[in-house]
Amino acid sequence: MTIVETQHFSLDQAHLKSGEKLGPLSVAYETYGQLNAARSNAILVFHAFTGDAHAAGYHQGDAKPGWWDAMIGPGKAFDTDKYFIICSNVLGSCKGTTGPDSIDPRTNKPFGLTFPVITIEDMVDVQKALVDHLGITKLLSCAGGSMGGMQAVTWAVKYPQYIHSAIVIAACHRHTAQQIAFHEVGRQAVMSDVAWNNGDYYGKALPARGLAVARMIGHITYMSWVSMEQKFGRKLLDKQKLGYDFSKDFEVQSYLEYRGQSFVERFDANSYLYLTKAMDYFNLAEGRKVSEIFKGVTSDFLVISFTSDWLYPSSQSQEMVRALQAEDADVSYVEIESDYGHDAFLVEFDDQTRAISHYIAKVGRERAGLA
Amino acid sequence: MTIVETQHFSLDQAHLKSGEKLGPLSVAYETYGQLNAARSNAILVFHAFTGDAHAAGYHQGDAKPGWWDAMIGPGKAFDTDKYFIICSNVLGSCKGTTGPDSIDPRTNKPFGLTFPVITIEDMVDVQKALVDHLGITKLLSCAGGSMGGMQAVTWAVKYPQYIHSAIVIAACHRHTAQQIAFHEVGRQAVMSDVAWNNGDYYGKALPARGLAVARMIGHITYMSWVSMEQKFGRKLLDKQKLGYDFSKDFEVQSYLEYRGQSFVERFDANSYLYLTKAMDYFNLAEGRKVSEIFKGVTSDFLVISFTSDWLYPSSQSQEMVRALQAEDADVSYVEIESDYGHDAFLVEFDDQTRAISHYIAKVGRERAGLA
Repeated sequence: MTIVETQHFSLDQAHLKSGEKLGPLSVAYETYGQLNAARSNAILVFHAFTGDAHAAGYHQGDAKPGWWDAMIGPGKAFDTDKYFIICSNVLGSCKGTTGPDSIDPRTNKPFGLTFPVITIEDMVDVQKALVDHLGITKLLSCAGGSMGGMQAVTWAVKYPQYIHSAIVIAACHRHTAQQIAFHEVGRQAVMSDVAWNNGDYYGKALPARGLAVARMIGHITYMSWVSMEQKFGRKLLDKQKLGYDFSKDFEVQSYLEYRGQSFVERFDANSYLYLTKAMDYFNLAEGRKVSEIFKGVTSDFLVISFTSDWLYPSSQSQEMVRALQAEDADVSYVEIESDYGHDAFLVEFDDQTRAISHYIAKVGRERAGLA
Repeated sequence: MTIVETQHFSLDQAHLKSGEKLGPLSVAYETYGQLNAARSNAILVFHAFTGDAHAAGYHQGDAKPGWWDAMIGPGKAFDTDKYFIICSNVLGSCKGTTGPDSIDPRTNKPFGLTFPVITIEDMVDVQKALVDHLGITKLLSCAGGSMGGMQAVTWAVKYPQYIHSAIVIAACHRHTAQQIAFHEVGRQAVMSDVAWNNGDYYGKALPARGLAVARMIGHITYMSWVSMEQKFGRKLLDKQKLGYDFSKDFEVQSYLEYRGQSFVERFDANSYLYLTKAMDYFNLAEGRKVSEIFKGVTSDFLVISFTSDWLYPSSQSQEMVRALQAEDADVSYVEIESDYGHDAFLVEFDDQTRAISHYIAKVGRERAGLA
């Protein structure tokens, strides 16, 4: 059992896409494995929406490992015997990196809604500063699923000379109307909770019910029709029959309630607003054609999608692959058969490991001079 | 322009599936066309979740006709030159038929949550009493989309000897985990609004924000990925660029807000709870195999689904068709190509008209002795 600790990196100022400046910032990050002497074996891993820097290993005393521990470790997809893995909490989150729940040094109070609206590009810029700080001039790879995949593809477009490869899983190059719509409803649920109080609820009652509703919507979109049928179907709770009242009858109701409640305990409602907004703003094709997104990329790409993911469907990954091919980028694409919907990137470890471990080894050999 | 009026039918008592009794009841209904002397040309049409008895024609002074006017009228799919069409508001709704917003004669106050939980079968029983009252012993057909389709198939199973045919559109024989889940989140949004006040809000502030959020979720599920992309994509509101704040940037956000707000003005929050619950309870396979649902049916069936409907997908209609075929029922199935998602049954009039008009004519000739 590998014990890991979260570390912190300080950044004086970030210049945001909105034109605003934000700083000083603190960035929570973890590393796994050893950086080699040539500093050529570093891989940056990105977490998804509600994740954190604790991607692998155990914190002292914890019973559960990091969120992608099945993928990061000795002999695993991201093999810590060979590679140096970095994962940082994104800007705007509430897991150690500066976000709306952080203290604004100007007021000595939490930012709340005075925190500036941030973008996926801003998250990537902060990560770039961290990578610079670690003395790494070129990453062997950068990899993530969902919002993590958006960061990976943004690295490839914004910092092409700093990466050898990008692994983009269950993601997209821009948010579509349906993706924006689901986020908008979640935000409205949060902002409709009177306890939200225009974002000023720290130290008071939390907008727990609104945030729970928002999370319930999310969970439906993370699963698939089939995985919901297999896990719940019409299974009743401990009742023998329907209750004919408004208490819960079905297991799926209880599951959603549990997911909503546990989310409230671990996530900040304002971070929910800021991070969903960042994803909704995400559009690498802003001001240009999709076919022009990848002009100037120099890295290799591995794109992975899952057959039953209807939130970030394979068609979006395939659109990216076509745009990359149009630029003669070296792109591999794997569609993994899975019933787990969007959650598959957190579940389907074997298929992802097969695709990723070989891919990283190949990039290491061909582009980074690794054995 | 045909002017129509809503009529009312009184029923002393309904015996509900839950075991409770409810009454006296008032049922709002409308009719279009003329009942023939043999009383053999009557078709019962069912509205969907938030619909009403006003399916066609114009109410005096109204600028807009009923919700399925494109399908009901002279020469239309449900041809009022030939057939007598009946549409009633369902039990538990708030559009003229007794529901949670009606006055409970025992207390002289609105029922609110003291209204009993009702089922699709209970709605159908009340319609059966209306049909009896109109002196019709056998319906030429019964037809509806979505929750209306659930009523149609329930008629076929519960009152086989009283119908010649059932037209089941964009529906299912039971609610699945994902369908229950979307409704559960909507109910939680309503019940999380402090104004909901355990259902006791009549004459006070309405749970407007919660109900609006619930409706927004619904609207996403009624559209399709493609129809949302075509209608909205990433189109901005009157802004020239992203706002970098929490005001609305995208047209799709504004559309959802509009849909949520207008719903609050026309629909009762408690009816939202009761009708979604009725759908979630809907399961013709309760206590038996799917293959046994249609044992004993005697009517013909026309089943229609739409390619982009992901809320009630074609696969559910096809499951019904297979179960009907297993009972040697005379079943026609049409899958209509459409990008409109579940909304298609309220949009794709030409294809539905082609399928339905010929089908009804055939049933009339072969089973009801109509010319």
